[in-house]
Amino acid sequence: MKCFDPTMYFITDSTAYSEAAFLSRVEAACQGGITLLQLREKTKTTREYLALAQKVQAITKRYGIPLIIDDRVDIALAIHAEGVHLGQSDLPVHTARRLMGRDAIIGATTKTVPQALEACEQGADYLGVGAIFPTTTKVKTVLTSVDTLKAIVQSVSVPVNAIGGLQKENIHVLKNSGIAGICVVSAIMKADDPCKAAQELKEAFDAQQKEDRTHHCRQ
Amino acid sequence: MKCFDPTMYFITDSTAYSEAAFLSRVEAACQGGITLLQLREKTKTTREYLALAQKVQAITKRYGIPLIIDDRVDIALAIHAEGVHLGQSDLPVHTARRLMGRDAIIGATTKTVPQALEACEQGADYLGVGAIFPTTTKVKTVLTSVDTLKAIVQSVSVPVNAIGGLQKENIHVLKNSGIAGICVVSAIMKADDPCKAAQELKEAFDAQQKEDRTHHCRQ
Repeated sequence: MKCFDPTMYFITDSTAYSEAAFLSRVEAACQGGITLLQLREKTKTTREYLALAQKVQAITKRYGIPLIIDDRVDIALAIHAEGVHLGQSDLPVHTARRLMGRDAIIGATTKTVPQALEACEQGADYLGVGAIFPTTTKVKTVLTSVDTLKAIVQSVSVPVNAIGGLQKENIHVLKNSGIAGICVVSAIMKADDPCKAAQELKEAFDAQQKEDRTHHCRQ
Repeated sequence: MKCFDPTMYFITDSTAYSEAAFLSRVEAACQGGITLLQLREKTKTTREYLALAQKVQAITKRYGIPLIIDDRVDIALAIHAEGVHLGQSDLPVHTARRLMGRDAIIGATTKTVPQALEACEQGADYLGVGAIFPTTTKVKTVLTSVDTLKAIVQSVSVPVNAIGGLQKENIHVLKNSGIAGICVVSAIMKADDPCKAAQELKEAFDAQQKEDRTHHCRQ
């Protein structure tokens, strides 16, 4: 059985750091209570991506956090990572599923209801939807409204995470959206204290989830 | 049983062409008698690489020519390509072998005897060695002497191909080197007539192989 907690999904960005500084931030995020980690590398060679993935995996394994590899099914297979995350420019979900088997966690980035339905038909285990806010990580990203996010949540049965410029100060816009978790890059990666940042974000999101449920019960 | 003919190994470079022009050149090369084709893409997204690989495969299958994918084991697995070619910045040969199985054709670029021995220990089916001459395809490539090429041929039992700036006018430098074939990019890709270029290169290499054998018999 495939079991993962998408509540506090941290996506890495190593570009601004030495390898040692990067790995130390990854570990701090794990200590702070992230529940899922995606290694995302866009400019490394395959061998460099593989080497970094192995080092990150040594950390995530210690904390029992599933490691998701962005884009590269070959890297994920090579290190037996728990899963892969696929954007619209990556392998189709059904191809990744065929190569990785049913136990792999396969996620997809979707920005519209049709994309979300297609990803789920192909076997996606979760969806990332955004960008909710402008982000410095992806310069040319297209924004997704909270209304579209809600429409996607209502259209699919898999967990849906919001992504894009999310911080503890702005996640209130997601209240009652029905999302399963939040994905963040900068809010943890670039924080002065990534451990504390992860912890506070998780607490803020958990508190909001609780409020949503209470609100829902009152209705 | 794994059976392939490395004699005339064409490596693509799509960068200067529209997709239609590129595919037409690929087909012309197949008509000209190439025996192995490597699709090499360095800047495409995974989905673009996959889409082009499928189109190239539709051609190579018609001509019965094995299709080798540069670097990307995931793309090769996704389309059931015959094999993969790995440089020193790509996945290690043993990892690719584990992911692709024993029937896949796995080649490796090696520039030294130790690299060649390592690739063969890990299960490489053939080696590409070079660059013999400076090449416009890889700007910063390091040259490999014909002496090193010969030393590699004598150190390993798998077929060894020479690569790098090879043209029908200069392949005579490879005589008595013991290579199994030649790899070319520009000499076919950029030729006015890629079909004729492939044909002439193959004839020139076959003639030289014959001469080498005759020479060897006389000794």
